[in-house]
Amino acid sequence: MVYLPSFKRSCSIPLVFLLLASLCSTTQAAKDNCSAMNKPKINDLSSDNIVDLLGGIYEHSPWVAQELVKAYDPTSFNSVSELAAAMKSIVDGASREQKMDLLLKHPDLCQKVEQRKELTADSQTEQSKAGLSDLTAEELELFNKLNDEYKAKFGFPFILAVRNASKYTVLSALAGRVKHTAEKEFVDALAQVHKIAWMRLLDKIDYSDAQGFLTCHVLDTANGIPAEKMRITLHRLSEPAGLVGEFLTNDDGRLEGGPALKGGDQFIVGEYEWTFYVADYFASKGTFVSGTPFLNTIPLRFGIDNPDDHYHVPLLVSPWGFSTYRGS
Amino acid sequence: MVYLPSFKRSCSIPLVFLLLASLCSTTQAAKDNCSAMNKPKINDLSSDNIVDLLGGIYEHSPWVAQELVKAYDPTSFNSVSELAAAMKSIVDGASREQKMDLLLKHPDLCQKVEQRKELTADSQTEQSKAGLSDLTAEELELFNKLNDEYKAKFGFPFILAVRNASKYTVLSALAGRVKHTAEKEFVDALAQVHKIAWMRLLDKIDYSDAQGFLTCHVLDTANGIPAEKMRITLHRLSEPAGLVGEFLTNDDGRLEGGPALKGGDQFIVGEYEWTFYVADYFASKGTFVSGTPFLNTIPLRFGIDNPDDHYHVPLLVSPWGFSTYRGS
Amino acid sequence: MVYLPSFKRSCSIPLVFLLLASLCSTTQAAKDNCSAMNKPKINDLSSDNIVDLLGGIYEHSPWVAQELVKAYDPTSFNSVSELAAAMKSIVDGASREQKMDLLLKHPDLCQKVEQRKELTADSQTEQSKAGLSDLTAEELELFNKLNDEYKAKFGFPFILAVRNASKYTVLSALAGRVKHTAEKEFVDALAQVHKIAWMRLLDKIDYSDAQGFLTCHVLDTANGIPAEKMRITLHRLSEPAGLVGEFLTNDDGRLEGGPALKGGDQFIVGEYEWTFYVADYFASKGTFVSGTPFLNTIPLRFGIDNPDDHYHVPLLVSPWGFSTYRGS
Amino acid sequence: MVYLPSFKRSCSIPLVFLLLASLCSTTQAAKDNCSAMNKPKINDLSSDNIVDLLGGIYEHSPWVAQELVKAYDPTSFNSVSELAAAMKSIVDGASREQKMDLLLKHPDLCQKVEQRKELTADSQTEQSKAGLSDLTAEELELFNKLNDEYKAKFGFPFILAVRNASKYTVLSALAGRVKHTAEKEFVDALAQVHKIAWMRLLDKIDYSDAQGFLTCHVLDTANGIPAEKMRITLHRLSEPAGLVGEFLTNDDGRLEGGPALKGGDQFIVGEYEWTFYVADYFASKGTFVSGTPFLNTIPLRFGIDNPDDHYHVPLLVSPWGFSTYRGS
Repeated sequence: MVYLPSFKRSCSIPLVFLLLASLCSTTQAAKDNCSAMNKPKINDLSSDNIVDLLGGIYEHSPWVAQELVKAYDPTSFNSVSELAAAMKSIVDGASREQKMDLLLKHPDLCQKVEQRKELTADSQTEQSKAGLSDLTAEELELFNKLNDEYKAKFGFPFILAVRNASKYTVLSALAGRVKHTAEKEFVDALAQVHKIAWMRLLDKIDYSDAQGFLTCHVLDTANGIPAEKMRITLHRLSEPAGLVGEFLTNDDGRLEGGPALKGGDQFIVGEYEWTFYVADYFASKGTFVSGTPFLNTIPLRFGIDNPDDHYHVPLLVSPWGFSTYRGS
Repeated sequence: MVYLPSFKRSCSIPLVFLLLASLCSTTQAAKDNCSAMNKPKINDLSSDNIVDLLGGIYEHSPWVAQELVKAYDPTSFNSVSELAAAMKSIVDGASREQKMDLLLKHPDLCQKVEQRKELTADSQTEQSKAGLSDLTAEELELFNKLNDEYKAKFGFPFILAVRNASKYTVLSALAGRVKHTAEKEFVDALAQVHKIAWMRLLDKIDYSDAQGFLTCHVLDTANGIPAEKMRITLHRLSEPAGLVGEFLTNDDGRLEGGPALKGGDQFIVGEYEWTFYVADYFASKGTFVSGTPFLNTIPLRFGIDNPDDHYHVPLLVSPWGFSTYRGS
Repeated sequence: MVYLPSFKRSCSIPLVFLLLASLCSTTQAAKDNCSAMNKPKINDLSSDNIVDLLGGIYEHSPWVAQELVKAYDPTSFNSVSELAAAMKSIVDGASREQKMDLLLKHPDLCQKVEQRKELTADSQTEQSKAGLSDLTAEELELFNKLNDEYKAKFGFPFILAVRNASKYTVLSALAGRVKHTAEKEFVDALAQVHKIAWMRLLDKIDYSDAQGFLTCHVLDTANGIPAEKMRITLHRLSEPAGLVGEFLTNDDGRLEGGPALKGGDQFIVGEYEWTFYVADYFASKGTFVSGTPFLNTIPLRFGIDNPDDHYHVPLLVSPWGFSTYRGS
Repeated sequence: MVYLPSFKRSCSIPLVFLLLASLCSTTQAAKDNCSAMNKPKINDLSSDNIVDLLGGIYEHSPWVAQELVKAYDPTSFNSVSELAAAMKSIVDGASREQKMDLLLKHPDLCQKVEQRKELTADSQTEQSKAGLSDLTAEELELFNKLNDEYKAKFGFPFILAVRNASKYTVLSALAGRVKHTAEKEFVDALAQVHKIAWMRLLDKIDYSDAQGFLTCHVLDTANGIPAEKMRITLHRLSEPAGLVGEFLTNDDGRLEGGPALKGGDQFIVGEYEWTFYVADYFASKGTFVSGTPFLNTIPLRFGIDNPDDHYHVPLLVSPWGFSTYRGS
């Protein structure tokens, strides 16, 4: 997440905290280690603790949590998604002035070249994690130019809600969004704010009771049939990285044994990758012959952002092409 | 390639030779080392050397090369593809009896459990490279059962043309193809034979003059426009593995600077992988917001089998799905 | 179906019978009118009637039905698909000679130009239904040339199993298949024979008890969500043509109220067309604005060939592209 | 276009004018008949005529055209797209107050039930063209409720830029957009205003010199090759409707003879439909056999909105599925 909390006026230092927090909340190992943090579950929320806990979800804007407890019974939320939606509706229903104020509460993304040079060695290391220290002189100049232009045009700082964003992400987002109309960028900046709040909320709540799950389906589009007995593996790429499971499709092309991941304990927000052994599958059909097949093993990388959702991530495949999508 | 040359009556030993040959022909390092082999280019072929050189392309069937020099002027081929097509046409035009004889010239894929136990430690190591030694007792039993059934039903040995096939590939192919009608499997087995010949031919000919090339194109299907300024990397996964290049799309969504690989020196048969930085791209549009994006970096793995062809491997992508295919 | 029964040695006359038979079996109106034909249901079959009824399914080859009653209990079939599979297995298990004999039992597709000129006016009318009388002189010459070449190369007549095929279909199939190897074309010709048998079988059996059904699913790939409240209509294009139903998607993007067609009475073999009102749907999202939208109403035309199957025909759609496939 | 000019306070009457204007500008027949209207070409524009001509493009807001001539040399535009972009940039650069004023200049979409009842027979006929008179009592109630809610929430009238919108489009758009935040809907309403301006501009300018063109490409994804010799027809569905051309793909799967439509005289804004004869094509491959094929002729309906653009509308197809998209 490139976004910087405002109490530090530099790009790099707060990133460290964010990264640690992120590790602490999203890795399994960390989950065990962080148990001392004693994160509440969704139904541990009460009027007493909710403002303390969630007051910082929206940057320097505890009024959102305060309005939440006025408008909703804090014990009534069934999931972190419902809670997030309620907080979002508070912001969405606020006046334009309140929204602008919320945007303005966010710190400037980055300081000038001169300031950057003064960073401590530690900070430079930390900054490097976000890729910003990799900026070449030319990129840094572009970055500062675009950032200044952005602030001058829109009157609020550039906000970007992506964890561990690379310099390319930041530059691409800045260069694209600086061209927006004022009205559109106001909307887009608020969308980023909501997403930052969402990621912070996931760090604050123990969502191990969440009901999300991951399913798959493989269709052989060359033959118009479900792809039976296709071998599939699933790896988690985010920490704690590793093989999650190995699967075989049934005669309907779905995973034998149901969802690949099910419930908050397994279905952890982060990045994953299916591997489909499609050449093995097509070898059973005989007609598709390849020394070096066009498609052999297909890696399919995807992110899970919401522990309450069903993610259906299927594969439509012929020996010469494939597609995937977030299904339902 | 699971197929075993017939001069050894075991599954494992010949595989070693094949694997070495394969390394020698397809890796760049190997290309240098193997220069002593003095592989001819396509226009170095003559009536004098062609039978010696290509007599073994089709298993124990030098008649194919002999017929070739009768039917074609060996100096007239412009590419390894043309040469392969001519040799294939010789076989395709042969009688059914000749084709059956060709199939029968191939060795049996594997010996029985008993024989396997008698393999030397060396052989077991070698066999492990092809994954066959990983067969569990249960899989081995299935394998032998299917292999026996195959031979009994069709009257010729099981032939499979895939380099470095895993046990899963072999088992999948056997289980699928044993169900074929005799007529269909005869066709499919011949297709495997042609593909083995093709792979062997690539090992015999220096194709560095080949004219194949690799292109890309990225379309943003959420916005109906070419994806401009998308960063893409290309890695070679086969030996010699490594980063091949880093690219940026132009305003038509194509690679700035033309093909990613061009000509036989670069465009080497083997396995490759694009990585598309799609979340960076969509960040420039502003509206697609994700803490953990559904699609962030997309790996796209594909094989190049023919050094003379144009491979167009595009990406059609929205923030929620993508597809690819072998284009033109 | 271009294929011609052998008792008439011309292209055109038998087509009339086939077309009438086809109308009689596949239209609803026809079903009522044809009740006098008294077609048996699948569980009305017995050893006594099956050879009479099905002896002609495979052209002049009653031995298939005769072998069927020896190998199977005729009262044990649960569906027309099971019955067809059993008959197919009889043929697949026959010797190569029997199969060649079966191919040879089929009449030649067409006579020479000279013969054609001699056709009666009636025949020319009938031939016109199959599109063959539309052949220009040039096309007719090509047709005869290819047909002669085909017979000379393979030694059996050209067989094509498509109802109401146009001249383009016939010419395209001839031109493509004449290039095959003898072994491949033998396999492909048998596949056509099986398909003709399948179509004839559907004309012989009352499949109104069949369990097939048609479902749909619409995904909005621009937003990564099911397309809710999309209006869809379904028309039957085959006789009896007309509007079959009007549907609305639910919040999972599926049809409210379940399958669009269910069971043999509704789910009749033939050609259908969905119409998806996608611009109406995207209008609800606000951001996709078009005076003349790229995609407004999407017609999706598809055929149902098997009354026992589940046909899932979904739509994946953004404002700038869509895909569909036979799903499961 | 559902949007109603403000000088009439009813839904229906202005629609007539719009529809007539539309017919006059977009049909070929109309083009000839309307020559008396003497529409200028893009390079006939001058400071003298541009405000008169384009003052009404943005509803009751001649200031847009007035600012245009101050900021741009009116003789410098090379295409209607450039002109539209310049006018859009004037609006986009205006203050929020000016934009709100522009939105408020638009009339309310529709009057209450009571008023509607008082419409003349003529008006009811005209209204029927836009589908609004088809509203059932229930739909009308919903419509009025949503429309009132919309105005109350956002403070400006509902604006929708779709020609000949059905009641479903209007209801879908209203129901979806009324849920937006004020900031997002402000952006979306302006986007509709720009699109209305675009459609009006196309009615004012003779774009027969435009450089847009339409291309196609067919890939056979079952075989990983361009689909050669596929027959394709193109129909224009908008007036003047009819067959535009018949095409055959070359060995790269593209149209022999170049673009299907090229230049403003042919490439007229409106709705079109390709028909791809895919079953004929696959018949040439032999292996894909269908009595009633899943895909036989594929209609592909699409709109052309910009006479200056390249529209690439390809087909990726196997016997069991296909996709299309706006390419480049």
